[in-house]
Amino acid sequence: MNRFSFNQATAKFWPLPDVIEGCAAAGVPGVGLWREPVASYGLSRSAALARESGVAVTSLCRGGFFGADDWLDDNRRALDEAAELGAPALVLVCGGLTGRSLAEARARVAAGLEALAPHALDVGVRLAVEPMHPMFCADRSVVATLGAALALAAPFPQAAVGIALDTYHVWWDERVFELIAAAGERIACFQLADWVLPLPADVLVGRGLPGTGHVEFPKFLTAVAEAGYTGPIEVEVFNADLWSRPGKEILADTIRAYQSVTDGLPGV
Amino acid sequence: MNRFSFNQATAKFWPLPDVIEGCAAAGVPGVGLWREPVASYGLSRSAALARESGVAVTSLCRGGFFGADDWLDDNRRALDEAAELGAPALVLVCGGLTGRSLAEARARVAAGLEALAPHALDVGVRLAVEPMHPMFCADRSVVATLGAALALAAPFPQAAVGIALDTYHVWWDERVFELIAAAGERIACFQLADWVLPLPADVLVGRGLPGTGHVEFPKFLTAVAEAGYTGPIEVEVFNADLWSRPGKEILADTIRAYQSVTDGLPGV
Repeated sequence: MNRFSFNQATAKFWPLPDVIEGCAAAGVPGVGLWREPVASYGLSRSAALARESGVAVTSLCRGGFFGADDWLDDNRRALDEAAELGAPALVLVCGGLTGRSLAEARARVAAGLEALAPHALDVGVRLAVEPMHPMFCADRSVVATLGAALALAAPFPQAAVGIALDTYHVWWDERVFELIAAAGERIACFQLADWVLPLPADVLVGRGLPGTGHVEFPKFLTAVAEAGYTGPIEVEVFNADLWSRPGKEILADTIRAYQSVTDGLPGV
Repeated sequence: MNRFSFNQATAKFWPLPDVIEGCAAAGVPGVGLWREPVASYGLSRSAALARESGVAVTSLCRGGFFGADDWLDDNRRALDEAAELGAPALVLVCGGLTGRSLAEARARVAAGLEALAPHALDVGVRLAVEPMHPMFCADRSVVATLGAALALAAPFPQAAVGIALDTYHVWWDERVFELIAAAGERIACFQLADWVLPLPADVLVGRGLPGTGHVEFPKFLTAVAEAGYTGPIEVEVFNADLWSRPGKEILADTIRAYQSVTDGLPGV
């Protein structure tokens, strides 16, 4: 489990200190955090607790939403928070359409990255552009493919802008393995979640633990390893049924799921 | 309206003869038909009624589902039916996963096209590979992008295999306009539907009439025209609310929607 990281969104209602202590107790070396629970518990307290527990913060979710009025200040603050937590990457959910034009919304993301890249370098946190599943294109992220995310990252230094790869969002793409190979060191964050059917009424919360659905995890893990990525592997699953269970059980099941899909793979 | 075609799935519960007579009465020159209602009314009767009414059958839905046991016979029959109806294209919904491997499922589609292409040429009906939205990749179509559909079509003569372009399925793709330009004469069928939010519990039936959602229709219509396509423009909208209304009203609203998004565009 030396590369495993438990993203706290997988146990949405488990209090932050319990998540960190639960990870430490279970021998989980990393945790992915979200800004809202961090703010509720307190930024310095969260950072101190993670440090004292020996659990590394592998990413902070989320920045982005470049269509929001206060996007610049808010994203700068998010970078500062990630830096204080010791998180190497800030995951960006880039936002959907605000007007009619998809091209305009995409240009806004590019401009947002340009505005933020210097601050990312200053504080030593990478902006990780997350391509989201195309079913979220209108309302959550106009960045809908790994190809688009890589194109957005390309003009910037590796240390400033990378991509966040979540299997749930990209598994369907016939180009994904060649794009992962091309991504190389742009991979700033790697998350596992499975595509399960049927989609629920709220498609946002219908993801499955790895191994319960249709994603071919060995192919993804191998491709990402071959691209040179040796960093944390997070499991991040938004699932309403899973969320209704006690945090400890969710963590235990997530560990089992992670082990089942990584079993026997070299370097994991 | 000389290029408009009303796909009967837009008024799912309107009986086939009423659809055809309704189109004729409203001056609609084309109709897209589906196999099940055609079979219920009778293939020859349907063909005769369309011919006598002067309404051209612009496409037949659907062949495909290459993972089904009887896929070969069933698709050959579908081609024969399209030929008898005078439909130039058989729309293919290629089927989802049946095992774990997406690559295998995609290879099965390629093999299916190879098996069917000679019969398509014999009967003079084009197989139209429809890329479907990636949210349907697991259960309806492993062909999730226009790029994938074009790659599948490429080995075959234009007259045997083309693609079916439905705005609903491809609007989010940052490559779509360059792919439409590359598609050229491969475009065998062109359908309009809009992406509306929120997605309903059953995502299959949440499409909107053109102009009610997020798709930029002028850009698509212009791109398809520039690619050289001069054929029918179908409106095909799966929407549970729309379906609950009387067929005549649905047709009238569909005509209005079509006119609103094509207004002022050259050649439409």
